[in-house]
Amino acid sequence: MSDKIKVGIIGASGYSGQELLKLLARHPLADVKMVTSTQHAGKKVCDLLHAFKHVYDLEFVKFVAGANEPGAVSVHTMATECDVLFLSVPHGKAMAIVKELTSEQNLKGAKCPVVIDISADYRLDTAQAYEKWYKRQHTDAQNLDNFTYGLVETNRENIKKARFIANPGCYATAIELGLFPAVKAGILADTGICVDAKSGISGAGKNPAPHLHYPEMNENIQAYKIGTHQHLGEITQELEKANPALGQIVFVPHIVPLTRGIFATMFATVKTPISQDKLDALYREFYADSEFVRILDPGQAPRLVPVEHTNFCDISVHCVPDSDKIVITSCIDNLVKGAAGQAVQNMNVVFGIDEKAGLL
Amino acid sequence: MSDKIKVGIIGASGYSGQELLKLLARHPLADVKMVTSTQHAGKKVCDLLHAFKHVYDLEFVKFVAGANEPGAVSVHTMATECDVLFLSVPHGKAMAIVKELTSEQNLKGAKCPVVIDISADYRLDTAQAYEKWYKRQHTDAQNLDNFTYGLVETNRENIKKARFIANPGCYATAIELGLFPAVKAGILADTGICVDAKSGISGAGKNPAPHLHYPEMNENIQAYKIGTHQHLGEITQELEKANPALGQIVFVPHIVPLTRGIFATMFATVKTPISQDKLDALYREFYADSEFVRILDPGQAPRLVPVEHTNFCDISVHCVPDSDKIVITSCIDNLVKGAAGQAVQNMNVVFGIDEKAGLL
Amino acid sequence: MSDKIKVGIIGASGYSGQELLKLLARHPLADVKMVTSTQHAGKKVCDLLHAFKHVYDLEFVKFVAGANEPGAVSVHTMATECDVLFLSVPHGKAMAIVKELTSEQNLKGAKCPVVIDISADYRLDTAQAYEKWYKRQHTDAQNLDNFTYGLVETNRENIKKARFIANPGCYATAIELGLFPAVKAGILADTGICVDAKSGISGAGKNPAPHLHYPEMNENIQAYKIGTHQHLGEITQELEKANPALGQIVFVPHIVPLTRGIFATMFATVKTPISQDKLDALYREFYADSEFVRILDPGQAPRLVPVEHTNFCDISVHCVPDSDKIVITSCIDNLVKGAAGQAVQNMNVVFGIDEKAGLL
Amino acid sequence: MSDKIKVGIIGASGYSGQELLKLLARHPLADVKMVTSTQHAGKKVCDLLHAFKHVYDLEFVKFVAGANEPGAVSVHTMATECDVLFLSVPHGKAMAIVKELTSEQNLKGAKCPVVIDISADYRLDTAQAYEKWYKRQHTDAQNLDNFTYGLVETNRENIKKARFIANPGCYATAIELGLFPAVKAGILADTGICVDAKSGISGAGKNPAPHLHYPEMNENIQAYKIGTHQHLGEITQELEKANPALGQIVFVPHIVPLTRGIFATMFATVKTPISQDKLDALYREFYADSEFVRILDPGQAPRLVPVEHTNFCDISVHCVPDSDKIVITSCIDNLVKGAAGQAVQNMNVVFGIDEKAGLL
Repeated sequence: MSDKIKVGIIGASGYSGQELLKLLARHPLADVKMVTSTQHAGKKVCDLLHAFKHVYDLEFVKFVAGANEPGAVSVHTMATECDVLFLSVPHGKAMAIVKELTSEQNLKGAKCPVVIDISADYRLDTAQAYEKWYKRQHTDAQNLDNFTYGLVETNRENIKKARFIANPGCYATAIELGLFPAVKAGILADTGICVDAKSGISGAGKNPAPHLHYPEMNENIQAYKIGTHQHLGEITQELEKANPALGQIVFVPHIVPLTRGIFATMFATVKTPISQDKLDALYREFYADSEFVRILDPGQAPRLVPVEHTNFCDISVHCVPDSDKIVITSCIDNLVKGAAGQAVQNMNVVFGIDEKAGLL
Repeated sequence: MSDKIKVGIIGASGYSGQELLKLLARHPLADVKMVTSTQHAGKKVCDLLHAFKHVYDLEFVKFVAGANEPGAVSVHTMATECDVLFLSVPHGKAMAIVKELTSEQNLKGAKCPVVIDISADYRLDTAQAYEKWYKRQHTDAQNLDNFTYGLVETNRENIKKARFIANPGCYATAIELGLFPAVKAGILADTGICVDAKSGISGAGKNPAPHLHYPEMNENIQAYKIGTHQHLGEITQELEKANPALGQIVFVPHIVPLTRGIFATMFATVKTPISQDKLDALYREFYADSEFVRILDPGQAPRLVPVEHTNFCDISVHCVPDSDKIVITSCIDNLVKGAAGQAVQNMNVVFGIDEKAGLL
Repeated sequence: MSDKIKVGIIGASGYSGQELLKLLARHPLADVKMVTSTQHAGKKVCDLLHAFKHVYDLEFVKFVAGANEPGAVSVHTMATECDVLFLSVPHGKAMAIVKELTSEQNLKGAKCPVVIDISADYRLDTAQAYEKWYKRQHTDAQNLDNFTYGLVETNRENIKKARFIANPGCYATAIELGLFPAVKAGILADTGICVDAKSGISGAGKNPAPHLHYPEMNENIQAYKIGTHQHLGEITQELEKANPALGQIVFVPHIVPLTRGIFATMFATVKTPISQDKLDALYREFYADSEFVRILDPGQAPRLVPVEHTNFCDISVHCVPDSDKIVITSCIDNLVKGAAGQAVQNMNVVFGIDEKAGLL
Repeated sequence: MSDKIKVGIIGASGYSGQELLKLLARHPLADVKMVTSTQHAGKKVCDLLHAFKHVYDLEFVKFVAGANEPGAVSVHTMATECDVLFLSVPHGKAMAIVKELTSEQNLKGAKCPVVIDISADYRLDTAQAYEKWYKRQHTDAQNLDNFTYGLVETNRENIKKARFIANPGCYATAIELGLFPAVKAGILADTGICVDAKSGISGAGKNPAPHLHYPEMNENIQAYKIGTHQHLGEITQELEKANPALGQIVFVPHIVPLTRGIFATMFATVKTPISQDKLDALYREFYADSEFVRILDPGQAPRLVPVEHTNFCDISVHCVPDSDKIVITSCIDNLVKGAAGQAVQNMNVVFGIDEKAGLL
């Protein structure tokens, strides 16, 4: 027990936090030591989240960034008791927390734990980009450079050396994994890539809203933020690192009546014709060492079900007959590979243990 | 009662046939006189389809194309008793039926009823095109010229004069209505249009199949026939009539866990920048006289629910910011505007009654 | 047009109100003249409820019970312009409205329209019963006696003579129709009837709530108000009128992942053995003149789908082998036969037109 | 690796078999060595079941009961290579297999592995009972006495000593766990227990059928085998062992639009009034040592979601106000606690390892 990775989760009551708790309960080398909640401090995890009854016996503790509240756990205590902290808080809430966690004054000589931020706060490289896409000021810009973008399959070597990880967005994960090999290989024309993504409704979080009320979403499909979704920022940023001549990405997200899953369909134009075999080989080679990406065999139908409740990303590639267009599909579980699973995968890589531990 | 349109339905036990029965039960100017079924002849409609108990008291009669079976209703009788025949049979089965219906020898002096074919058999203009897309020979090529493509909103004047209607495919309806105004106006570059369509599962018909078994489709999305779906034939044919410089259409259909509905998302490139207002105005003007097409207001979310169980097609148009791309969405109920409702709309136009009769 | 029934709807933006609008749009003998909404007054119906675009061109007007607000429509005007008013307001809100509508001072000589109240406010015969089941005081007790319980199949003759109708609750409709013939015939022992009912989520109304958020209800079933649901009040009241020796009804409602529909399964004990044929005959005879109730044939599976979007109630009756128990199932669409459809049926009966007008 | 339990699965391509593979992939002390399939022998598991790509590298081997086919694995080999065999075959197919597995002639000196039969073939104590409920002859009646009923929570001590386990049916598991404490304590009158159970559709297996086609089950509920479902045999048998004065159980199963889960609602009459506290205490005490059963706290809503994808059974108990009736609800995941999870739990108990291994 003593040499397990000691885990803290800040903000564990949302869907990503619950999924983290579920995955970590099965992880052979990790041990959840502390879970915080502003709202539910003092309550048992299993009293709020009945699914964890007889699984976790933890209580939520209080942690308040920037405040010195009585009864709240201190940064020093956190740093002493945890090897890694997952931040599973709403977008915009992680900045203040990381600022506190990294302050020498708060740490009082303790070593700052590894931080894996599931929110969007440290995914973009600059404060300007953050403000463009999230329409709010970044209040911890000095830490942006300390964070590494946590898409293991395209950035594994950097993650191995990192202690601060910005866990990618759910749409971003599916789309970047789907496009990266082709973009990197420079086979695409720069005339634009069209991306149609369909997401389950857990992607919108746990708060009820009129348009997510069961009778409104059952038998429904809805498109939103057409061409303007905030994940476009990180998608473009990361793909341009792979190849600056990227061209524009037109991204249309949709919600569909599922709890979980993202299915992204991507349309791109190739500079010069490529055979189905070569396209297939390009992708297989790129992901040869990444077991969580599975390239479908020709003729195999792209489907969401096989990735649900898993950390896999299933990709299929298609040369359109008599055309310079290719179509790529990419499927993930938004709460696992698109959030909590990828966060655990990042932890595994940072701590140098089997990348798949707790994830199969 | 005597001056109502007398209706016959050939093949009424599938999903389109059931929807026709439902719509015609409410139609103030039509009266279903005859329904045929090879398999269920002699059975009451309401014994096979319990939903019609206390609604229809009809019995299925037998009609066998090409055969002279005892007890089967003759073409002469059909022609005498019906003003219009809906063909709601599987693709490939309508050809033989139409051949029989139009034979002078069979009609024995009776006038051939108006025929509205919901199958795909007469949608393509040539036998070659049919064979290309449906991989089977057309056995009634001489009648192809007699059929008029039944997309009322783009072909109303021809339909008014027609007696043989090829009712468009469900995907084709949503996609053609979504693209027609832009294609016709010549504002699109010929570099390709990408179409991502999501369909409810009733579109695949009533026969059970392993991949359509409830537990396989619940929480699932599946793409299929990527770039090769047979509706591409009629879509290209009809849009090229509007504008020969169409460019390629890359069409990726998906099934999603709904019973009903098609949501098509279309990505196109404009030759020269166009403002949101102008694009909007172009569409509103084009459909000014077509009440079944509704152009969404700016800011209004494109959703399936408002079109379900209706004959409406809801369209939204979007200029992507800082881009030469536009995005168009188009939503229909696949069984109504995509099949039975459109068939009734065609009947109304052919018979010169209110286009909306029985459809609101 | 001039001799159609002129309809007003008070509170038309909820699910029952929307369903009323949908049904009345097809009604050949009714014409919606006025729809009120406190919150949306001044807005077009179709701007709030896009489904009605190109169907209704009405605007919501303001009506405020008890207040004399500028711009609000008066009771006198309502009474002059409408033959019937549907009250589609939350439980507890109808009392104040009816009090206003029936005041001579407000009517100023006009005749009070027929009132059909879809809320629960006038279903119970006494103010005490109301207070017991709804935990609030009844503020219009003097009008309770003027209302007639609107379950047409068991109370048709009284409804014909009534001008104030209390439309039954959705669960109550399914359960009373399922039990009435057996209770009335006196064949049941008084040792208790167990009722397990499963409802679609539209039954809980349009307001989002944490437990009705899509990801919480998808793949879920939830029981609630076990033995204490407020519909038990009207169920017991009406069945005891049929037979005072009713015994206790134990009622457990559940929500299941559907938008629409109620499926009630009822377990009762017979005093003396009865054959399947006799039980069947008892039910067929009882509902012989009620076309909206359909008794399933032996061997026919009880299913929700055939009643959805209809005003039918499908009932099946079963003698359990080697037992003194019988099982009865009853299926309705909660928004149609369980609310708006039944309200229209009541209107038809009160106005002496075909009971099925607008409902097939 | 060498001291892990070596597992063979006979018939691994159905839903229970897939769930077994999923659970065993995570089991720290078990290792799947062999999977058989008559139909898919020679194929890789992951080629048939894509979800297991990068998880299992096994191939299906052929095993044919009663035949000596070339290439088929022999009983001797199975017995040598496996410590335990799970039988995940259709009802009626396990009898012939067990007969073969236990034949000295086939074993050729090897020790017969532990057998855990997920089918119904050995759940009933006598061949007569089997024939009554399954309408077919039992062809291995001599082995019936060797099997132990595998409901761990009510039969743990016997299972510890057993080598042949009859894994309970899914409905039977939910219902027996829900009723056992009350029945055993003798608090129930013998006037009959009414059970209404709602099941997800995976319970009907993987084969498509017209009534399980997605559009037929979406927005549907269906009751079936009212009072006659075959699980009633084992339910009655096991509860009568707890208390011979059981009275009749009236069981009505329903399918509801879920993939997974069973929600059983049970209505019983108590001999003498019991307080909510006492009823609650009776259940808590009974299951004090069974972590997989969780008794809900008063006021906690009974819901399926928290048990999905788990081996838990959530039970709530309710005294109906002013009544001699009690209501008990019981929720499980039909594929886990109702099939594969319970089978693994049985394996854990038989092999004397932590009952929860691989199941949290």
